[in-house]
Amino acid sequence: MAESIVATERTLIVLLIVISTVAIAVRRIRLPYTVALVLSGLAIAIFQPFPRFALTSDVILSIFIPPIVFNAAFHLDLDELRDNVGPILVLAVVGVVISTLIIGGIISLGAGLPLTIALTFAALISATDPVAVIAVFRELGVPRRLSHIVEGESLFNDGTSIVLFEILLISLVLGRFDFLPSLSSFFFVTVGGMVLGTGVGFVISQLLRRIDDYLVEITLTSITAYGTYIVAEEIGISGVIAVVLAGVIIGNYGARIGMSPTTRIVLVHFWEYATFIADSFIFLLIGLAVDVPLLMKNLPLIAWAIGAVLVGRAAVIYGLGTPLNHFTGRLSAQWRHVLFWGGLRGAIALALALALPAAVGNWRNPLRAMTFGVVLFTLLVQGTTIQWLLGRLGLSSQLPRRKEYELARARLYATQAAWRRIRQLSQDGVLSPSVWNELNAEYHMTEEQLSNEIHTLYEEREELRREEMLAARSDALRAERIALQDLLRQGLLSEGTYRELVGEVDRRREALRDGT
Amino acid sequence: MAESIVATERTLIVLLIVISTVAIAVRRIRLPYTVALVLSGLAIAIFQPFPRFALTSDVILSIFIPPIVFNAAFHLDLDELRDNVGPILVLAVVGVVISTLIIGGIISLGAGLPLTIALTFAALISATDPVAVIAVFRELGVPRRLSHIVEGESLFNDGTSIVLFEILLISLVLGRFDFLPSLSSFFFVTVGGMVLGTGVGFVISQLLRRIDDYLVEITLTSITAYGTYIVAEEIGISGVIAVVLAGVIIGNYGARIGMSPTTRIVLVHFWEYATFIADSFIFLLIGLAVDVPLLMKNLPLIAWAIGAVLVGRAAVIYGLGTPLNHFTGRLSAQWRHVLFWGGLRGAIALALALALPAAVGNWRNPLRAMTFGVVLFTLLVQGTTIQWLLGRLGLSSQLPRRKEYELARARLYATQAAWRRIRQLSQDGVLSPSVWNELNAEYHMTEEQLSNEIHTLYEEREELRREEMLAARSDALRAERIALQDLLRQGLLSEGTYRELVGEVDRRREALRDGT
Repeated sequence: MAESIVATERTLIVLLIVISTVAIAVRRIRLPYTVALVLSGLAIAIFQPFPRFALTSDVILSIFIPPIVFNAAFHLDLDELRDNVGPILVLAVVGVVISTLIIGGIISLGAGLPLTIALTFAALISATDPVAVIAVFRELGVPRRLSHIVEGESLFNDGTSIVLFEILLISLVLGRFDFLPSLSSFFFVTVGGMVLGTGVGFVISQLLRRIDDYLVEITLTSITAYGTYIVAEEIGISGVIAVVLAGVIIGNYGARIGMSPTTRIVLVHFWEYATFIADSFIFLLIGLAVDVPLLMKNLPLIAWAIGAVLVGRAAVIYGLGTPLNHFTGRLSAQWRHVLFWGGLRGAIALALALALPAAVGNWRNPLRAMTFGVVLFTLLVQGTTIQWLLGRLGLSSQLPRRKEYELARARLYATQAAWRRIRQLSQDGVLSPSVWNELNAEYHMTEEQLSNEIHTLYEEREELRREEMLAARSDALRAERIALQDLLRQGLLSEGTYRELVGEVDRRREALRDGT
Repeated sequence: MAESIVATERTLIVLLIVISTVAIAVRRIRLPYTVALVLSGLAIAIFQPFPRFALTSDVILSIFIPPIVFNAAFHLDLDELRDNVGPILVLAVVGVVISTLIIGGIISLGAGLPLTIALTFAALISATDPVAVIAVFRELGVPRRLSHIVEGESLFNDGTSIVLFEILLISLVLGRFDFLPSLSSFFFVTVGGMVLGTGVGFVISQLLRRIDDYLVEITLTSITAYGTYIVAEEIGISGVIAVVLAGVIIGNYGARIGMSPTTRIVLVHFWEYATFIADSFIFLLIGLAVDVPLLMKNLPLIAWAIGAVLVGRAAVIYGLGTPLNHFTGRLSAQWRHVLFWGGLRGAIALALALALPAAVGNWRNPLRAMTFGVVLFTLLVQGTTIQWLLGRLGLSSQLPRRKEYELARARLYATQAAWRRIRQLSQDGVLSPSVWNELNAEYHMTEEQLSNEIHTLYEEREELRREEMLAARSDALRAERIALQDLLRQGLLSEGTYRELVGEVDRRREALRDGT
């Protein structure tokens, strides 16, 4: 037997056993799953019961990141993205640039690193990775717009951070920073990624439409996630950005036009599992890769790095007030606290730190120590306290009766979907009348029961009804806005009138939002 | 970037692209999927557009076989197994021994190979691998018991064949065959595998019962499939037999006591996909690994091997008449023809041929050529003609009346589509009232006739209505599940509530399935 394959397999099995154990144990102790994984990895690394596992930049970027990014992008709802595109892009592009400048400045001035070295570190540390935070959000039912902004920011700022990092590396190697070439390279890399991702997204969506076999469709999406990343990196454009775009298009366009219900169900579970495994491995390997003596030797630098990262994050979140408020209704002070403290750092930062080339000279090890230090701090300190913060800010409060209401609403929704499906089948002549009659009566009864249940809940808690009304109104306004856009596109509305009407709609949307 | 990881990834992506292409193309041409894969691999290998891929014994046995064997065992119904345990065990144990003796004898006498060498080849070639055959069975609706026997035989004879092969190898190395030690080693290896597999199966089943999180449960079953195999091989007992036992126990006992309906659905899809990928890779790699010049050089030996394999199979299937009929009701002559011609050889034979040690001396290459030759013959000749054989034997005939019913249903469906179209045209003012009236009356009449026809068929065959009802219900439940996923994705439902509701739906889906 070729020892290498079996040896790798044995290591993977052991890691899977650790992952399962942590996942099971975490139900009993109150600790975010990812944090528990990092701690387990650390514990294993300290007691060294098995050879240190090599966590290379390559393993992170070309094996783990594509499925995670693809899955997140696949689930991004385009309508919601449109509503929040302002704050997300401001945070993910402008935010990363500002954060890089501030962190780089502080570290260069305070800790005495050369400016380009400091900026390189600042760029690699500026992408947020809120896996742990999002998990807490889901559990507690945080307002969906907030969690959407946090997720969207982290999805789009990876690309920015990587591109900035690479441009800074080039100037490090060249020994000088050329502004214009850097800017044009920034555009080439990001826009190139977008173009490739969009193209792949549409081509694969069309293919998915022609096939109805979920085994093949899963394979096609896997090819998309990994293939797009590798091709993009080989051309020299942004792989992460390309995968994000391909994922968004397949999730919104491809899934709508090209997937049977069964395929969607199976595909969603497949990617959920792929992401679970990738996330689990990353965080466990982060723990395993920690070099404790190296961290100890660089404690002062790490302290500077943590401080700078916190100041940089605060400056972006609290300082970008005006542009953010211009784009969106308002980000309340509470939400800003969550965005500030929820800005964890993770896999991308580590991958970039591990990819630092020889050009950074003696700074390579200190920079790695700083990166590990910051990642561990945000995970172990911020990650474990975000739940407490949400509680303090009253953002996780679950209304009494809300759960019953949610259950009844969701059941009603599901029942109606099923009923529609049956009606469709019957209209298409797929169902014989006798089968249709029986099923129709059944669904009719279920629907009535659920409606009554919801009505009773409304009488008990007036705010449930108010919330539902609000959500419906805001949905309707979104439809109005899209209708106006269509009219404009078709030339049935002049630009001026369009702007007037859209302004009206947006004023109503804002009034709604402020009424919350 | 460490070139090796990215290079491997690139090769895998290319192979996945080939697999998808073949899977899509095979819908248009009438060729079993696995056969098409082998041919594609052959074509690629002949024109050499990319470096020959190393198919080692290790890759097959420790990467591809565990998931395939686990999945097959997981789906084995213990009740059905009990009904057919007689013929399956006779074929899988006695059959393999007899087949080994006959094939070895013929090759040794006819082609002049030393007896031990001939027997070693006979042992490795005696395990059947009916992936291609089973796929055809599914498509044509072959009697369930027949396909169960074919599947069961192939699942259990892998172990026997491997153990025999290893014992013969030992006597090759020692230069003599010791009957008693060989027999005791045979028992140690097989019984050891059974004990380990049973133990793992029960322990994991208990664990699954304590957990309700399908992400963790999938991980535990993956650990079972791969971990059991590796541990068994390291102890020196049969890995395949251990995985079969663990799979059967988890599939029958663990799934019943320890899995929520959602887990079961997700798990089944996960393993279905894992098996699809493993099967696809194996057959593609078989094609890629064919060494055409080597085959050409050994044509006479290959011809002897094919002849011997056919004679051996015939002797087992037709000759084991008395013991087989003793255990089971009867195996009709028709079924025997199918069992004879459906005895394809595949991955296990190749893995063992590739694992042949230096002790076989100059015979290594001829034996490999013979193995590849037999595998290719059974796949490309027997695999492509089994469908024709089933047709000739009248074993693919579906339920009487079913065809009439299908016809009437499809006609009704088409009629209603036409009627809708006419109504649309009339509503759009494209049709004059007089034309509309005439057409409307026509379609009305046709629809009524077809409905009556279907109704009559229902009265004759109650199960047709039951099936339709079942299909409609299961479609409706699928719609409910997707509606819930949508709610989750839109953030209108919290994770916990979602899981509760999906669990409900899945319970109903399962109840449906069990009611069949």
